[in-house]
Amino acid sequence: MRVLVTGASGFVGRHALAALAARGFEVHAVARKPLPGIKIHAVDLLHEGARRALVAAVAPSHLLHLAWDAEPGKYWTSAKNLDWVAASLDLARSFFEVGGRRLVVSGTCAEYEWGTDRFEEGTTPCRPATLYGAAKDGTHRILDAYAKSVGLSFAWGRLFYLYGPGERPGRLVSDAARALLAGEAFPTSPGHQARDFLHVVDAAGALAALLDGAVTGAVNIGSGTAVPVRTLLDGLADRTGRPDLLCYGAKALGPSEPAVIAAAITRLRDEVGFRPRFTLETGLDDTLAWWHAQQGSNPLS
Amino acid sequence: MRVLVTGASGFVGRHALAALAARGFEVHAVARKPLPGIKIHAVDLLHEGARRALVAAVAPSHLLHLAWDAEPGKYWTSAKNLDWVAASLDLARSFFEVGGRRLVVSGTCAEYEWGTDRFEEGTTPCRPATLYGAAKDGTHRILDAYAKSVGLSFAWGRLFYLYGPGERPGRLVSDAARALLAGEAFPTSPGHQARDFLHVVDAAGALAALLDGAVTGAVNIGSGTAVPVRTLLDGLADRTGRPDLLCYGAKALGPSEPAVIAAAITRLRDEVGFRPRFTLETGLDDTLAWWHAQQGSNPLS
Repeated sequence: MRVLVTGASGFVGRHALAALAARGFEVHAVARKPLPGIKIHAVDLLHEGARRALVAAVAPSHLLHLAWDAEPGKYWTSAKNLDWVAASLDLARSFFEVGGRRLVVSGTCAEYEWGTDRFEEGTTPCRPATLYGAAKDGTHRILDAYAKSVGLSFAWGRLFYLYGPGERPGRLVSDAARALLAGEAFPTSPGHQARDFLHVVDAAGALAALLDGAVTGAVNIGSGTAVPVRTLLDGLADRTGRPDLLCYGAKALGPSEPAVIAAAITRLRDEVGFRPRFTLETGLDDTLAWWHAQQGSNPLS
Repeated sequence: MRVLVTGASGFVGRHALAALAARGFEVHAVARKPLPGIKIHAVDLLHEGARRALVAAVAPSHLLHLAWDAEPGKYWTSAKNLDWVAASLDLARSFFEVGGRRLVVSGTCAEYEWGTDRFEEGTTPCRPATLYGAAKDGTHRILDAYAKSVGLSFAWGRLFYLYGPGERPGRLVSDAARALLAGEAFPTSPGHQARDFLHVVDAAGALAALLDGAVTGAVNIGSGTAVPVRTLLDGLADRTGRPDLLCYGAKALGPSEPAVIAAAITRLRDEVGFRPRFTLETGLDDTLAWWHAQQGSNPLS
């Protein structure tokens, strides 16, 4: 089994490589920057010729496609979403045409129509409110039809809220952890909204399990439990001993933010058979330990 | 107002050119073959560089995008549907980025979940059963989100069943008309299924009216009336005086073919303000007159 992983230097991608290697895959990674101990292919996936040449050269049996535009603050509305739709469709087709058998692509909870408390793959409508969500949703619908028409085994892993080692700045947990460890005030929303948080190692493990199986269609990748953001931030502050640094209500919650976002994880748990390694408590311990170790160095260099 | 029309040598496209010129547009056509009296751009829209250069050179204010893979018998499942998704997204983006203001793209009744008697834009679910339908549906969803995010005026015209002058072989009315005029037997299904048939000149006129207005979102382009296929074929046979040539039941109706497909046309009639020129009766007269004139020549050369 030979797997090609795109977006391998991204937050989930880096953790997916080890999970796939542990399952016996020969791992080929497409990444924009070096990865310790991994042979990478430094290919621009938006370049048609380079993309097709890579797929032909690696001839993978499995493809875990995680790459997408993820520029902080911009990816929700960036026109690059259109480029990634096109590249993803062509990548899937090239993969199948060189003999690929099993494809997993990462989706997002932003595909769902927000408003339901618990998003279920088979019943909650997909009516994304953003270009990013619509581009992912459209890609899923088209790839699902393509895979059925040619007989390619295909699953779509919808990621919810992730946290953990290696998260880039500009995200809730990474910014809070950094501020709390640095003794800086952390202005945030009132924090009553509940979100489904999953440790990134578990998200990567779930994607690896999904790829290494035969479940098809959309599969939520989450913890199954929505936790108030306040609970998570209090957990970080308790561990650093500085709850006074959390300034709840210093920022407003966006008007489109729903009260609750939780993943139904019946498919992930019962069909894929995945069990997470971390609880929220051990996950926060692990995350803070990593940020602590990064202090004084640049964790993203 | 300068309009770029893609797929201009296609069945609807050829008729759309005159309708747009009559509305005062400066018409630029992308076509694969010469069109009488029209200056065409012979550009391969699947070639990124050529596509973008064309859009930059024409700098249209309006874009009517009709081009798509339409290879008879193959387009329902062809992998080329993926190429057309990619080309369509990039075309729309290029158009907007050179100053384009109003975009209309052709969709299909095959985007809807078949089973409801009357498809309504706002309420009937889109759950296509084919790759072609899914590719069109996905493109619509993504373009709709893109257009909203950048402020581009965008409508999606869902075509139902068309007939009329210039229809290629391999379609119901073109094959029946040719056989009846040639005195050949025409084996067909029992013909009890009802379909929404619109004369191609009216479909083209509706698309031109849609483009020349400000209505956004999906708009069905149909007659609003489902007619049993038997009624339509009987109409052709009565006009040629050879009802004996129709062999009803000589072919089976496909198992996925629903009993009724009809367009709700409230949006087209009341919001776009479009009124058709042909009834089914005058439309069949017109179609047969055209096929009659083609006899002895090759109508598709």
